Amino acid sequence: MRSTQLFTKTSKTAPADEVARNAQLLIRAGYVHKEMAGVYAYLPLGLRVLDKIKQIVREEMNELQSQELIMTGLQRKEVWETTGRWDDEVVDIWFKSKLKDGTDVGFGWSHEEPIIEMLKRYVESYKDVPMSVYQFQTKLRNETRAKSGIMRGREFVMKDMYSCTANADQHEAFYQACIDAYKRVFDRLGIGSETYVTYASGGAFTQFSHEFQTLCDAGEDIIVKTGDGTWHNVEIAPAKISTPNTQDEQQPYEEKELQNVTGVDALVKALNIPVEKSTKTLIYSAAGGETIFAVVRSDCEVNKDKLQTIVGLGSLGFASDEVVKRLTGAENGYAGVVNLPEGAKVYYDDSVEGMTNFETGGNKTHVHAVNVNFGRDVAAPEKFYDFKMAKPGDLDPATGQSLEFAKTAEVGNIFNFGTQKSEDTDFAYTDENGERKFVHLGSYGIGITRVMGVIAEKLSDDKGLVWPENIAPYRVYIARLGVDNAVIETADKLYEELQAVGIEVLYDDRDARPGEKFADADLLGIPHRVVVSAKTVEQGSFEYKQRTQSDSSMLTAEKLKSVLTGQN
Amino acid sequence: MRSTQLFTKTSKTAPADEVARNAQLLIRAGYVHKEMAGVYAYLPLGLRVLDKIKQIVREEMNELQSQELIMTGLQRKEVWETTGRWDDEVVDIWFKSKLKDGTDVGFGWSHEEPIIEMLKRYVESYKDVPMSVYQFQTKLRNETRAKSGIMRGREFVMKDMYSCTANADQHEAFYQACIDAYKRVFDRLGIGSETYVTYASGGAFTQFSHEFQTLCDAGEDIIVKTGDGTWHNVEIAPAKISTPNTQDEQQPYEEKELQNVTGVDALVKALNIPVEKSTKTLIYSAAGGETIFAVVRSDCEVNKDKLQTIVGLGSLGFASDEVVKRLTGAENGYAGVVNLPEGAKVYYDDSVEGMTNFETGGNKTHVHAVNVNFGRDVAAPEKFYDFKMAKPGDLDPATGQSLEFAKTAEVGNIFNFGTQKSEDTDFAYTDENGERKFVHLGSYGIGITRVMGVIAEKLSDDKGLVWPENIAPYRVYIARLGVDNAVIETADKLYEELQAVGIEVLYDDRDARPGEKFADADLLGIPHRVVVSAKTVEQGSFEYKQRTQSDSSMLTAEKLKSVLTGQN
Repeated sequence: MRSTQLFTKTSKTAPADEVARNAQLLIRAGYVHKEMAGVYAYLPLGLRVLDKIKQIVREEMNELQSQELIMTGLQRKEVWETTGRWDDEVVDIWFKSKLKDGTDVGFGWSHEEPIIEMLKRYVESYKDVPMSVYQFQTKLRNETRAKSGIMRGREFVMKDMYSCTANADQHEAFYQACIDAYKRVFDRLGIGSETYVTYASGGAFTQFSHEFQTLCDAGEDIIVKTGDGTWHNVEIAPAKISTPNTQDEQQPYEEKELQNVTGVDALVKALNIPVEKSTKTLIYSAAGGETIFAVVRSDCEVNKDKLQTIVGLGSLGFASDEVVKRLTGAENGYAGVVNLPEGAKVYYDDSVEGMTNFETGGNKTHVHAVNVNFGRDVAAPEKFYDFKMAKPGDLDPATGQSLEFAKTAEVGNIFNFGTQKSEDTDFAYTDENGERKFVHLGSYGIGITRVMGVIAEKLSDDKGLVWPENIAPYRVYIARLGVDNAVIETADKLYEELQAVGIEVLYDDRDARPGEKFADADLLGIPHRVVVSAKTVEQGSFEYKQRTQSDSSMLTAEKLKSVLTGQN
Repeated sequence: MRSTQLFTKTSKTAPADEVARNAQLLIRAGYVHKEMAGVYAYLPLGLRVLDKIKQIVREEMNELQSQELIMTGLQRKEVWETTGRWDDEVVDIWFKSKLKDGTDVGFGWSHEEPIIEMLKRYVESYKDVPMSVYQFQTKLRNETRAKSGIMRGREFVMKDMYSCTANADQHEAFYQACIDAYKRVFDRLGIGSETYVTYASGGAFTQFSHEFQTLCDAGEDIIVKTGDGTWHNVEIAPAKISTPNTQDEQQPYEEKELQNVTGVDALVKALNIPVEKSTKTLIYSAAGGETIFAVVRSDCEVNKDKLQTIVGLGSLGFASDEVVKRLTGAENGYAGVVNLPEGAKVYYDDSVEGMTNFETGGNKTHVHAVNVNFGRDVAAPEKFYDFKMAKPGDLDPATGQSLEFAKTAEVGNIFNFGTQKSEDTDFAYTDENGERKFVHLGSYGIGITRVMGVIAEKLSDDKGLVWPENIAPYRVYIARLGVDNAVIETADKLYEELQAVGIEVLYDDRDARPGEKFADADLLGIPHRVVVSAKTVEQGSFEYKQRTQSDSSMLTAEKLKSVLTGQN
């Protein structure tokens, strides 16, 4: 492509309301156009990158014998009602509208339910499984905020794949093959070495799911490495405190009334105790109305995901002020493990294990108990759990090694539904013995536009974008300097010759200053830059530089071609 | 692809609510899945056809130096308010919803306004034009009824292209090149010989637009061929009556009162006159409130599109009963050219020219005037127009030849906006002299899913689909009959060999009856069928048949390959 034919232009500025680095760069380089927050059009260069990412993903999904299709954006209410997910209380990111006759329609934020509904027509017998299908679909999600550029959009492209298998073994085989395929995808996208397979929450169906998390400072996730080298989303990461509790001589139990003290810092200061001698008690309500008390040492936080798994009452939320008052008789903020209401269910995090002479809320307004000791003031807990939020400094409970932390963006996830969704939707097959059995279902996503954003974000430098070889819109940028006939002829010839051997070239044939061309080559992030000028023509060679290197070298035409075709 | 790996299956029936032949066949053959009326998912075979159609269109658009991009589905209200098209009264097919903060959003039924808004950023100087961009976009249109399968959807794929040019000449050059490109597209899609470039209404901007209309009984359009061989959408087709008015001796003018006579047939019967001696007068109101009278001979109908162009008052609608009553003093249904209200603007169609002793409404309730004559009872019209709806039997006014009629589906359209839309949206460039000038805009559509539906509809036969060579999901169907080792080996080998030379094969390796395989091959519409059976193996040859032929022939492997590679 000649620059003079490409309609987009680079720009020194991005829209004032664009705060995400990936979108700022992509807009300045003319790859995307911002329609509204979280909604971006892909201009020719951006579409080329997107199509290359898709093609890599497509090839690897086809390797899994998965079959590509494309579902619809418009969706039926009834299909989502079977699983209760039409309800805005359950799924709060729906875009909805109505047909002319008043029929409700939704715009696909996910395609799980419609895909299952469609597959029911075709997957009927044990002969029909294992099978899987996938699509590249534009998803619409009514996100409250969308400030991460193309890394989190209200409109974005996702590859979603679904597997149907006869049983857990068949599922596991496909699941593992998919993990391998995903690894190949991220390798080919140039981010394999910084993308980790990560254990994540499995929801109601299975102990774990897996996420693919790429190191990225602008990412929204935190992942944690345990001593065995495996990564965990912080939402499920195990953790042990690194400052063990000391066994001190028991001091007399005391209740102190403190006015106008809020927060742990103020409290331990007022009481003149170290934070490690203080505990926090949080009261949660489950959907069914049950309440539980959760206790951690005050330098820890409760990880609600971990707690939920332990408690097993479904989704937990903080108990309301009214519930707390009714239960403990005190205002919210003074919950503790002394003066507990009868029958209170208390869960202790293991950060509390072995504490002596500690502080806890008095379950009376303004009252805190100090020098509390298990077995004397409070019944010794039968069991301690790990539901603390892992934080830097914490240890891996299994190995005792320090946990490692990283900021990441989730670029893929794979999920085992077991037979839960099939039961909800009555999706069954007939086995070898004529018996009706529920299909095992899995789902496997890759955020296509998000991964493009992550790559733009993390591989870019202060000069602009830096595309990996496999997904750059063009591999070579020819910067033609000057308008001498000899220069034009040499540059034209190189352009034709490189294209003839299948190398994609962006040929900067504009009448512009060298500095402008170099800046554009950098901003656009094309992997290889070749300069053709009066000087290079005179020398009978080309000035060659990689985007990721600062030094250029002079190469003969032959050498240049062998470098660009990877035959050097 | 092996049939045993393809998850879709054929079926003998389509959903009971599916009335369109194209969708019935596509559903039965497993190409599409009906999500709701006018909303279809594309399963693997259907997606392959769709992608091939897209690729053909893409290649031809790229030949025009047009640049592919992809706009967004979510659209901003403000962008459409500039041209007044956000209003549901103006565009009645919007799907709309709201962001969480209450901001209105629309779902793209068209992308004209957002494309222009985006292009403003890049098209600024005479150096930036001519240029054009295109996309393959999923459009959402809230159609009241959607009963034509994939020929008219609520969700469908369209290729829409837009050109920006400096002036009318530049526009015309691109426009003509696009007509040629479209012709190549429809040729390659296998419907070129039955697709006509057709003059259509140009709207407010230009005298004509062009449509590409494909002969199709299920189509919604009618096109008309004039004596010079050009086709016109019936909405603008010229027409002249074939039964000229006779000059008869004038009879005495008379007004007759008739009770309970409605409709032309009853009227001429009651009056005992031929229909060619009767006229119809229709009263229209324009948006500005003006009213006009339009008169045709009673065996003709008024073509509102043609009339609008002549009258030049914008969109016309029938005057309400109240307006008619106020204007003529009579109930609706008795309008005529006698007893006209003062200042009435009357337009005469040329079917009325030269009428003698004719009937017209009396502009009095229940009253009809007969033996009316121009110059005696009514002022002789200064001018006659052609605003009748062309109908079989009518003549081409220019050549006097009979008009030809055809039922068609619109598969493409090209449109000149002139500078109207640029003026509305303030889209200007700076010319060579530094002057600000409005950009000339054109838009060019091809209904991608519709054209697939038209092909499914018109080329199919009683056995099923019949795909043209270039867009068939697979070119060859190998029907393996029996499970003898020799048969399996021979069929496997042929499957591998054909694929090795780039021929796409659907290999029916199922353990199924021959009749079932042949029926599927026909229903699926694969162009070439090869049978491998014990008999063919014994003969050392293959049974070959084309989908469009009834006779098969026995071919050697060598001959078969040369036939399939087109080297026979």
